[in-house]
Amino acid sequence: MGYSETDWKAINTIRLLAVDATFKANSGHPGAPMGCAPAAHVLFNKFMTFNPQNPDWLNRDRFVLSNGHGCMLQYALLHLFGYKISMDDLKAFRTVDSICPGHPEAHDTPGIEVTTGPLGQGFANAVGLAVAQAHTAAVFNKPGYDLINNHTFMLFGDGCAMEGIASEAASAAGHLQLGNLIAIYDDNRISIDGDTKCAFTEDVSKRFEAYGWHVQQVDDGDNDLEAIEAAIKKAKEVKDKPSMIKLRTTIGFGSLLQGTGGVHGNALKEDDCKQVKKKFGFNPDESFVVPNEVYEMYHKHASEGASAEQAWNDLFKKYSEEHKELAADLKRRIDPKKPLPDGWEKKLPIYKPTDPAVASRKLSEAVLEAIHEVVPELISGSADLTGSNNTRWKKAIDFQPPNLGIGDYAGRYMRYGVREHGMAGMMNGMSAYGTIIPAGGTFLNFVSYAAGAVRLSSLSHQRVIYVATHDSIGLGEDGPTHQPIETLTHFRALPNMMVWRPADGNETSAAYYMALTSHETPAILALTRQNLPQLENSTVQNGIKGGYTLIEAENADVTLVSTGSEVSICVEAVKKLKDDNITARVVSMPCTEVFDAQPKEYQLKVLPDGIPAMSVEAMSTYGWEKYSHEQFGLNRFGASGAYKDVYKKFEFTPEGIAKRAKATVDFYKGVKPRSPINRAFQQLL
Amino acid sequence: MGYSETDWKAINTIRLLAVDATFKANSGHPGAPMGCAPAAHVLFNKFMTFNPQNPDWLNRDRFVLSNGHGCMLQYALLHLFGYKISMDDLKAFRTVDSICPGHPEAHDTPGIEVTTGPLGQGFANAVGLAVAQAHTAAVFNKPGYDLINNHTFMLFGDGCAMEGIASEAASAAGHLQLGNLIAIYDDNRISIDGDTKCAFTEDVSKRFEAYGWHVQQVDDGDNDLEAIEAAIKKAKEVKDKPSMIKLRTTIGFGSLLQGTGGVHGNALKEDDCKQVKKKFGFNPDESFVVPNEVYEMYHKHASEGASAEQAWNDLFKKYSEEHKELAADLKRRIDPKKPLPDGWEKKLPIYKPTDPAVASRKLSEAVLEAIHEVVPELISGSADLTGSNNTRWKKAIDFQPPNLGIGDYAGRYMRYGVREHGMAGMMNGMSAYGTIIPAGGTFLNFVSYAAGAVRLSSLSHQRVIYVATHDSIGLGEDGPTHQPIETLTHFRALPNMMVWRPADGNETSAAYYMALTSHETPAILALTRQNLPQLENSTVQNGIKGGYTLIEAENADVTLVSTGSEVSICVEAVKKLKDDNITARVVSMPCTEVFDAQPKEYQLKVLPDGIPAMSVEAMSTYGWEKYSHEQFGLNRFGASGAYKDVYKKFEFTPEGIAKRAKATVDFYKGVKPRSPINRAFQQLL
Repeated sequence: MGYSETDWKAINTIRLLAVDATFKANSGHPGAPMGCAPAAHVLFNKFMTFNPQNPDWLNRDRFVLSNGHGCMLQYALLHLFGYKISMDDLKAFRTVDSICPGHPEAHDTPGIEVTTGPLGQGFANAVGLAVAQAHTAAVFNKPGYDLINNHTFMLFGDGCAMEGIASEAASAAGHLQLGNLIAIYDDNRISIDGDTKCAFTEDVSKRFEAYGWHVQQVDDGDNDLEAIEAAIKKAKEVKDKPSMIKLRTTIGFGSLLQGTGGVHGNALKEDDCKQVKKKFGFNPDESFVVPNEVYEMYHKHASEGASAEQAWNDLFKKYSEEHKELAADLKRRIDPKKPLPDGWEKKLPIYKPTDPAVASRKLSEAVLEAIHEVVPELISGSADLTGSNNTRWKKAIDFQPPNLGIGDYAGRYMRYGVREHGMAGMMNGMSAYGTIIPAGGTFLNFVSYAAGAVRLSSLSHQRVIYVATHDSIGLGEDGPTHQPIETLTHFRALPNMMVWRPADGNETSAAYYMALTSHETPAILALTRQNLPQLENSTVQNGIKGGYTLIEAENADVTLVSTGSEVSICVEAVKKLKDDNITARVVSMPCTEVFDAQPKEYQLKVLPDGIPAMSVEAMSTYGWEKYSHEQFGLNRFGASGAYKDVYKKFEFTPEGIAKRAKATVDFYKGVKPRSPINRAFQQLL
Repeated sequence: MGYSETDWKAINTIRLLAVDATFKANSGHPGAPMGCAPAAHVLFNKFMTFNPQNPDWLNRDRFVLSNGHGCMLQYALLHLFGYKISMDDLKAFRTVDSICPGHPEAHDTPGIEVTTGPLGQGFANAVGLAVAQAHTAAVFNKPGYDLINNHTFMLFGDGCAMEGIASEAASAAGHLQLGNLIAIYDDNRISIDGDTKCAFTEDVSKRFEAYGWHVQQVDDGDNDLEAIEAAIKKAKEVKDKPSMIKLRTTIGFGSLLQGTGGVHGNALKEDDCKQVKKKFGFNPDESFVVPNEVYEMYHKHASEGASAEQAWNDLFKKYSEEHKELAADLKRRIDPKKPLPDGWEKKLPIYKPTDPAVASRKLSEAVLEAIHEVVPELISGSADLTGSNNTRWKKAIDFQPPNLGIGDYAGRYMRYGVREHGMAGMMNGMSAYGTIIPAGGTFLNFVSYAAGAVRLSSLSHQRVIYVATHDSIGLGEDGPTHQPIETLTHFRALPNMMVWRPADGNETSAAYYMALTSHETPAILALTRQNLPQLENSTVQNGIKGGYTLIEAENADVTLVSTGSEVSICVEAVKKLKDDNITARVVSMPCTEVFDAQPKEYQLKVLPDGIPAMSVEAMSTYGWEKYSHEQFGLNRFGASGAYKDVYKKFEFTPEGIAKRAKATVDFYKGVKPRSPINRAFQQLL
């Protein structure tokens, strides 16, 4: 308590940096930073522990700006506290290649924990960060060693409050009793369409109470720093519930347009900039001004953070002596190279062609069963489809608040509920914490519910694994509402995403190998409900190339390129084709993105010049033209029935494939087509 | 009140039909039908007015099974009341080409209002049906003519209650004070992972109260028919709030596994089937049995519904005399051919090449401004981006509860709030009502948030228009979090979806023409933030072919195939290429799906044999291989900066295009490539 003139100068400095940067860019959102600066000041300067010299210190408090459009608030704070964001960086706000882009991006800007802006995502990320903290604490803290005790703070606005992903994550957080999570709701009653009265009149506090949150209200978030401080203090005292502080603020505080939608997403006009500077006691003719005492105040807090890290390092040193194995494990997990434990890959199951046919969802389960002990950072889970996704190893303990009696926070199995989007957003946050590799299951078709968060897994380089079972019309009876057609195409077009569709056991192991070792790239594993035979020539070594020649043949007439459950049908089709004197090769292509990364020479061996290639995949053909000359797939919705009947209806049978392969051979008679790999120019990357 | 033995016989008949059908299919979900049969019986037989002989009667009460996996409940009811679902249809449950598929599909099964199963969708659909009812009533009802007064009833389970889309729609419904909406929450405390205690411990009733709903609870939904009836009666009396009735039920009531997850998604074992039949007084050795008195009871109610329709038809006849124009409008709207008003298309704006450059989001606004008076069934709206999506015509009145003083139910502009998924689900319901064409705006990137519902627009053949502005890296400063890369690929791979990306004013009019007249197909209109010049040779007539030759040239060396904002840059590139003695054609391809539907002869004129084609689109190239030999696009995330800087960075300039076109010409020197349209075999449709 006891706020000085310098505190207000600091708050107004943040506001004016947001005003100046958005004015210079002639773009951006000054309103939220101007309204939230008081709360952010109190939060960062009175409560949060962090060291700007080492933004990766594990036990730092986390801050998530879920209303990411207000990112000038965050950039200004990070600059003022001494993170590696210079004044020139602030001036380059929203210009090409700046580290201060239009919305906060975790991967490139020091001090940004998660990538936000798409509304509601940060909310779910913060819940994930809190899950990760609770889990890491439960695993590593020991008597006398409260190693992991950071909080996750989050700011969210009306937009986030309306988004379904935030509702899902809030409900989950309440269930999980995440007392380490404190959310401040910027209740400024303005969204882009103006007064929230036009669309959003619910009682948000009551809703959060219904979720099981501790809820407070601060009536004057513009001026009452003491009340803000008291509320955050109280929230920290509540250990068994996440906290929400509803903070009444005035959007664009100080602007002539304060309290209106006019200041939400547009820079202030020049005269407005001048008057607000005057109002705050700044020189109206100067821009990007930081009074020395503001730097001093914040740098002092930053140096306290550095000391805190030093003290933590000392503690960890002692801990390392007393708890050698745990310390080594933790150290490994937070190594920036993110190595997995030595030799873990030897646990990956290997199959022989004589092994029985198994559904790839079960093969995935076998991988989890085999590796969960040697990869302790792996946290599995499902959006209420555990028995269908096969995501739970036998001895798994649920991640649950201990008082429910059905698990504890050291548990490594998440019950996400029927909340696919929330799950994905939480997994992004869990991954961002730094000590966890999250894997979460749902049906492939419902990964689409999570598309907004999946995209951010890719954009923010999170090692998140989507265990996507029931991956085609092969799921059978559930029918068209559940049978993906467009889904793999969608995610193959998403940059920095590996879409795996393994054809058998060895390829499933390969998929996990790549998903776990590609620590800057998320993965979707598309897995069958139905059984798949173990293929001849399939090996983990082949699989990790993304695409390989499963059946080679001299003077081949055609190459069949296929994935997952259709590969073994192609193998059968080869025999049928032989009866017609057609020689076919088969390429298994479990992951096109990884195949794309192979040397061109290798790619051309797999898809050689001169041989027409036909793709076979029981879903949209769209995009397969990249790897084949002709495409056999399903460009309509599926059908409800036993899986063999459905496959037969759409001719995904040896006969149906052979028929089209013959048509392809006929069509290319006398033509020696170029390999689809051969291209006129390189794509920009 | 006053329930007889026959009522219980009817309830148990429904239960046993679900048991028998799932047993026969060895697949499906008997648990929800067995638990919900009492409530469904009371609802259908005591409250709902409908005529099985005419499932399309406008003023029928609507029923939505949001927990669509329980569809045997609905199929059984529809059969028993006399809809065109035979006993043989029930026996064909979950077999290929049955009208009783694994989840309810609106398009093919009489009496199914909306397609459900993907959880939460039905909830949002029901809110949309209620919106449509309120709007239609406000427009057409007149003193003495309470023409439109149906209710929408909805059943939802724990899964729906957890889904974000349902939260969004519930919040919107509360705000909109939809007293015509009554939801029954099947609170059976079981989801696929077992007891909801493991993931879902919030206070659902309190949450719905927070949204502004009227909430009741029935403690014994298994036995207390009187309490169920009283609650529905009370809910109907509440006119200014949607109602939620929390009904405690026992999943799989009667089964040996009742009350457990074991009866959720698996057929009962044979001995369990027998014992439950015995328990209910049925012959354990018989299947698919309907006692005569049950048929009689339900057919009696059905005939009351037929009489109600007759009375309504009489009322409408009188109304037609007194309110000629309104009656004619309503009649036209519910004509199964869904004709638009005569001559409406003459209002579509037409542009000359000399007209100024305009952003296509503004061109879209001009269309709405021009046609909203002549297409009264068009209801526009936005997910809180009105000023950015340009979805609101100047004189629009908001659809709002009148007591808020900011609109009324006759209003034709929806303020959906920041609820993209909810918006899309609501639009599906609004479209399904039959009197409305909904158009809703958001940024193209955030249509992905709604992917689950967009998919169902396609699957259920709803004429829904997604106004998707800010359609590329051309949105500029907002940066990679907001710049779509994979989005168009995703939705182009979705069956029965038109993705339009118009290049100028005439193409924008063409896009609206097709979106409004394709009454079995939804459309996404991808529109720019930045200005686009009006192109020479662009016409509405050309545009509605989906793809056409914008610049023809004899002996062309290369065809540039492009969409939207990149078309005019291709036109500039043609001039650059001329300097290098390269002759280029330009094809504008605003909608690949519509182009696909043209005769092959036409397609081959646009993309002729012998000329290499290069696609140009500032986003993922994935899939463009279908229409071109080489592809120029962006297979990485974008950048935050002024749009021209961003375009320059990624070389979407006349120079950048010309460079790659030259490489393409070089690469194909001496090769006369087949048109990408020429294919070895036809796809199954």
